[in-house]
Amino acid sequence: MPKVSIKGQQMPESPIRKLVPFSEAAKQKGLKVYHLNIGQPDIKTPEAALNAVKNNIPEILEYSHSAGFESYREKLADYYQKQNVQVDSADIIITTGGSEALLFAMGSTMDAGDEIIIPEPFYANYNGFSVASGINVVPVISTIENGFALPPIADFEKLITPKTKAILICNPGNPTGYLYTEEEIQQLAELVKEHDLFLIADEVYREFTYDGDEHYSVMNVSGIEEHAIMIDSVSKRYSMCGARIGCIVSKNKAVMSAAMKFAQARLSPPTLAQIASEAALDTPQEYFDEVIKEYKDRRDTLIKGLSEIEGVKVATPKGAFYCIAKLPVDDADKFAQWLLESFEFNGETVMVAPAAGFYSSPNVGTTEIRIAYVLKKEDLIQSITILKEGIKQYNNK
Amino acid sequence: MPKVSIKGQQMPESPIRKLVPFSEAAKQKGLKVYHLNIGQPDIKTPEAALNAVKNNIPEILEYSHSAGFESYREKLADYYQKQNVQVDSADIIITTGGSEALLFAMGSTMDAGDEIIIPEPFYANYNGFSVASGINVVPVISTIENGFALPPIADFEKLITPKTKAILICNPGNPTGYLYTEEEIQQLAELVKEHDLFLIADEVYREFTYDGDEHYSVMNVSGIEEHAIMIDSVSKRYSMCGARIGCIVSKNKAVMSAAMKFAQARLSPPTLAQIASEAALDTPQEYFDEVIKEYKDRRDTLIKGLSEIEGVKVATPKGAFYCIAKLPVDDADKFAQWLLESFEFNGETVMVAPAAGFYSSPNVGTTEIRIAYVLKKEDLIQSITILKEGIKQYNNK
Ligand SMILES: Cc1ncc(COP(=O)(O)O)c(C=O)c1O
Ligand SMILES: Cc1ncc(COP(=O)(O)O)c(C=O)c1O
Repeated sequence: MPKVSIKGQQMPESPIRKLVPFSEAAKQKGLKVYHLNIGQPDIKTPEAALNAVKNNIPEILEYSHSAGFESYREKLADYYQKQNVQVDSADIIITTGGSEALLFAMGSTMDAGDEIIIPEPFYANYNGFSVASGINVVPVISTIENGFALPPIADFEKLITPKTKAILICNPGNPTGYLYTEEEIQQLAELVKEHDLFLIADEVYREFTYDGDEHYSVMNVSGIEEHAIMIDSVSKRYSMCGARIGCIVSKNKAVMSAAMKFAQARLSPPTLAQIASEAALDTPQEYFDEVIKEYKDRRDTLIKGLSEIEGVKVATPKGAFYCIAKLPVDDADKFAQWLLESFEFNGETVMVAPAAGFYSSPNVGTTEIRIAYVLKKEDLIQSITILKEGIKQYNNK
Repeated sequence: MPKVSIKGQQMPESPIRKLVPFSEAAKQKGLKVYHLNIGQPDIKTPEAALNAVKNNIPEILEYSHSAGFESYREKLADYYQKQNVQVDSADIIITTGGSEALLFAMGSTMDAGDEIIIPEPFYANYNGFSVASGINVVPVISTIENGFALPPIADFEKLITPKTKAILICNPGNPTGYLYTEEEIQQLAELVKEHDLFLIADEVYREFTYDGDEHYSVMNVSGIEEHAIMIDSVSKRYSMCGARIGCIVSKNKAVMSAAMKFAQARLSPPTLAQIASEAALDTPQEYFDEVIKEYKDRRDTLIKGLSEIEGVKVATPKGAFYCIAKLPVDDADKFAQWLLESFEFNGETVMVAPAAGFYSSPNVGTTEIRIAYVLKKEDLIQSITILKEGIKQYNNK
């Protein structure tokens, strides 16, 4: 019998999906499960985007240009320019989600055996994309104690080898909610210039910042035009994850030309979703103001609630819609499973994502969980009550 | 300055796009260009598919299950069962086009440095997917002289090494239009059983067969359930290339579980396009009858016309909508460029795809072109006239 590839065996299971059978069993038992575990927002997709699809369905659903609609790329460039990111349409390739943009970025900058340094905890699928691309993730630990700020540059430098080709950051961060300061980005810029590395920034949450903090893009830094690669996506910005539209952005012509070859091989990004995404660019600012207000409100509710649970430690997120909480339990993996398998509070329970899956180093983050605040406020409040009761009962069993 | 990966440098340019600047220049000059070079059908997408999108747009465009809608997978399994392909929904993962299914198949069965044997000429993007996956294509030549039939099994056997993991066929073939017989598929089945290889069959043109010949799927062969992997797509079947929906199908659980991990890493296939693709399964048989009749008519027109040009040799395609023609010119690459750059016939010219890009061996197929018969009959007739005149003038210059 022919065998599956080593790569296929090494591809990691998604840490969020590991518990799915248990949550399904819980639902079968009649329990209501609050999902704090997924990054699927409950916010409505802008109507302009959906209406554009309804009203502009072509008679023949053709391949688009491999780089995406020219009209969309131009409008997108305008959008970025308004945010002070000086790019034009030639610096943008539309991809099938930020996911594909990450794959193109890795494929264009790294070969089998090359290394990419990523502050952990990080978006778990970076592992999958790395295995798929044959490259090795070298983690550098950031900690809840200092709010998941950028690790000292010296920590990065210790990890740089001749195989190191890139540093990947997520800004604002999933799962940390951390927003890098301009200073931190500048430090990274110096580092990549000095060591001739790429700086790949996953900015799919770039619009989600709170407390008046401004997002500072790697595309804003002058002097690293040849190093900077930005990953973006419509998934979270417009709550249209199912569209599968993202982009890779860079001023480095060689990178864009390599990425374009990957793009041509797969022919085109989805046409209907491009129609939606192009129209989404007309979404009025009020939509975002409301969405941001909503997320901020939820964040405040969540952080307040979590901080009031004895023994829980949490770093206040400055962006995105996730936070990491450190729990007073022996093992967050076991605890999360127990919440679904053996616990209930008035017929309800919660599903959380154990954070160990977001770390690449073994035995780190084992008592942490990631919470996505994509539920409405009342549900969040109820979830916190359940979590609190869960921790108590779990530790008393 | 950081450098692009070797992989990124080695990614092949699409052979069909190489001439695009010349065709654009021709159009700028005011010439009408008939496109015989692309596989984008001009057939209308079934209305059922487009209406489903219009009428069922959700309020929130959410990620779907990573394997695709369960309802779609079940309906698709029914579709295959009616075609005597005994699979159920668990054997199917919905992908972003057949393109992604090919990437998942390669990633799940092969590691860097592994080899895949492919009869050439073959769909050019197999090269790109192979480079992206770090695997090596080992071509086995099929020739226009015997209509691009399966090369002798002994030719395959000569090429098998410990690194060989799979054989990839395209059935019916792009660019050859060849339809493998049941006997040929059985021979391949014996071969992969004996050598413990995977047999990956790209069957994205499976509905397009003419002259009453029936398509014989690798999924029909008993005894190779653990070897067979089928690649499929809605792109050509329903003329909805821009949907970006395909699938990978296999009874091999280990392969499917590996493919599922690749699928999870990229989250989900496009949601709107899945709505369209699921509805497309209700397309009445008459749609296909008409489409097949149309393509058969075009094929007959094309083949007759080409055969009447002195010195042109062509293998009658039995399926898909491509054919390879051998021209009485010194070099098809130069000729194709010349047609766009230096030739016109009453203000018109044709764009063809030089076939060398569909061969992996160097210096093979250099006088061949691929023609896609995705234009209506009158345009095909006109294109043949132009081609004929072009050949004459090119050889007399
Ligand atoms: C940090 C980060 N990057 C990339 C992605 C990929 O998103 P998509 O492929 O939907 O654009 C996600 C999705 O959750 C994410 O959280
Ligand atoms: C033989 C073959 N396989 C696969 C594909 C990929 O098609 P898609 O990704 O649109 O399903 C094509 C497209 O032309 C093709 O000709």
